Amino acid sequence: MRAAVVREVREHERRVALVPELVGRLTGAGLEVVVEPGAGEWAFHPDDQYVAAGAEVSPSDVLESADVVLSVQPLEPDRIARLKPGAVTISFLPVSSELDVVRAARDAGVTALSVELVPRISRAQSMDALTSQALVGGYRAVLIAAERLPRFFPLSMTAAGTVPPAQVLVLGAGVAGLQAIATAKRLGAKVEAYDVRAASAEEVRSLGARFVELDLPSLEGAGGYAREMTEERAQLQRDRLAPHVSSADVLITTAAVPGRQAPLLVERAALEAMKPGSVVVDLAAESGGNVEGSVPGEEIRVGQTLLWGGRNVPSQLPVHASRLYAANVVNLTLLMTAEGEITVDLSDEIIDGACVTHEGAVRHEATRELLGGDG
Amino acid sequence: MRAAVVREVREHERRVALVPELVGRLTGAGLEVVVEPGAGEWAFHPDDQYVAAGAEVSPSDVLESADVVLSVQPLEPDRIARLKPGAVTISFLPVSSELDVVRAARDAGVTALSVELVPRISRAQSMDALTSQALVGGYRAVLIAAERLPRFFPLSMTAAGTVPPAQVLVLGAGVAGLQAIATAKRLGAKVEAYDVRAASAEEVRSLGARFVELDLPSLEGAGGYAREMTEERAQLQRDRLAPHVSSADVLITTAAVPGRQAPLLVERAALEAMKPGSVVVDLAAESGGNVEGSVPGEEIRVGQTLLWGGRNVPSQLPVHASRLYAANVVNLTLLMTAEGEITVDLSDEIIDGACVTHEGAVRHEATRELLGGDG
Repeated sequence: MRAAVVREVREHERRVALVPELVGRLTGAGLEVVVEPGAGEWAFHPDDQYVAAGAEVSPSDVLESADVVLSVQPLEPDRIARLKPGAVTISFLPVSSELDVVRAARDAGVTALSVELVPRISRAQSMDALTSQALVGGYRAVLIAAERLPRFFPLSMTAAGTVPPAQVLVLGAGVAGLQAIATAKRLGAKVEAYDVRAASAEEVRSLGARFVELDLPSLEGAGGYAREMTEERAQLQRDRLAPHVSSADVLITTAAVPGRQAPLLVERAALEAMKPGSVVVDLAAESGGNVEGSVPGEEIRVGQTLLWGGRNVPSQLPVHASRLYAANVVNLTLLMTAEGEITVDLSDEIIDGACVTHEGAVRHEATRELLGGDG
Repeated sequence: MRAAVVREVREHERRVALVPELVGRLTGAGLEVVVEPGAGEWAFHPDDQYVAAGAEVSPSDVLESADVVLSVQPLEPDRIARLKPGAVTISFLPVSSELDVVRAARDAGVTALSVELVPRISRAQSMDALTSQALVGGYRAVLIAAERLPRFFPLSMTAAGTVPPAQVLVLGAGVAGLQAIATAKRLGAKVEAYDVRAASAEEVRSLGARFVELDLPSLEGAGGYAREMTEERAQLQRDRLAPHVSSADVLITTAAVPGRQAPLLVERAALEAMKPGSVVVDLAAESGGNVEGSVPGEEIRVGQTLLWGGRNVPSQLPVHASRLYAANVVNLTLLMTAEGEITVDLSDEIIDGACVTHEGAVRHEATRELLGGDG
């Protein structure tokens, strides 16, 4: 059976769903691999690397004959319509914002798997693209900040005197936040971090950072994610975070609630109270922002503070973001592959959890509700 | 007596020669400190910080009454002409490219001290602005590279597999190079480094990096700087460096010979052989470049490699570059200050070494030669 790798067409997407290094894992399982010309171009993988790794790079339509299609962004509805009934797509598929894609997959009889919906169980860790890409985002957030800060990150002892380390505050201590903490510590900054989940305090401390205690009742969510909170409590949280924000040289925010608006954690007044030249990186800018006024993909001034809003941040480190994402989708593909044949086994909780559409129906309940009468 | 701090006017200069934190060291020695409005603006020090620290911020001419003038870049000839005879200027003063400034200082009877000429002796370490600014440049070079590299710097062990660390090659293991090595190591890269001075091997190794041996006869220069070499030997060096360059993800070049053209260490062919997405930072771009084709202040593509040419790199970290530079010039000023009086004591080898003009004459011999009959 054939696995197809598409060239991403959405703006700002530089990743590719399969890297040459991992082609052999699919061919070794008996699958043919066909790649659209230029698929890896923005991730610095020219076509000849795929050919050398055992894939075919085909200028003709790779979709019509595909049994499984690997992509980063969801396929456009018109491309889904060209797939065989029963073909499988594996990609990011944020269902609430991609209902057209869901309808197209349902109508084409395509099995659409969303990597966002892969359950967070230990057997699925190697398929967890949210985690792998959050690692990239957290790392990159620190580099963005360090490159823009007019100060050193590390304590510097020189013959001309000692300069103190930068103070970094990380809000949200999930995968991206922990990676940001670790990277900022590597660079020698003094780091403190906050998360609504009190349980994250130990992880924060194990990285050598200080955990900020706001003396609010804790919220523990399902599946390792934070749950939403009341507006009153949210305001109290913002107010108590404000002094920590204003004493930081660098603020990195990473708080996200999957499928929902990101919580507002920092108001404009707190940014304006930061030291001149401070840098704020809002990794949640695309989902509404943790910081008031952040704009995805833009760098703006708020008072004397630079506010950088993230937009597809993993795509900005395309070689390794692609490498990790490719491992995730290869592992998910191989879970469905035996002796060169792909079978969608809905009795496997990973496949069941990730499955949005199958055999002409929308299986994912929340998506069905979003579609209403059309589901 | 009065120390004046000017607002820098040269393009791309964001530093300031005195920071509020160090005002007290001058006033404590009995000097009045007067600051041009907006002098610290680009280094994130507003005027009120200087006032709070005990300086006067004066909208009228700060030069006419100044006994010592602190600046980063040399004062323009027309500003030097406004100084009192006997006034002292302390700044960078690259004599070979600033002969107009030298003439103006001589003609005005001004004592012009060049921080580049401060002798590299241990008593003068705290006044060594070349060192303090090179520290900034070396640190920043790594951040520039890491922010632009499409890969992680550190080894990353994840559930989706392990990605190897970035390979960083540093050419020139002086102050900037050693700082670049240390910063790249902090970020988790695998680092190798080369310098024509074999003696630097131990310093390189002490930072955990590999020293590249090219099996060329070593060159040891005076004052800790590398000397020039024959063209034949230079070509051999480039040829033997080429395979190290092409296997690196990041190349940082820092090789400079003060007052001369920087040595060409890397030819275009070696850049083109680098992995797609590699990043090259040439800190020597302003003095001719260590890398063929580098342009100061520009980011260009050579094949699939990004080549970043430095232009006033310390100025890109203006808070701490200013802080360290200010300590250097304050220390130099205080060396000349007793009981609130400034005296130029040419029997002190630091003052003698740094002195370009004094009492209407050009004292610095190499500069006198450059001026020819006009010296």
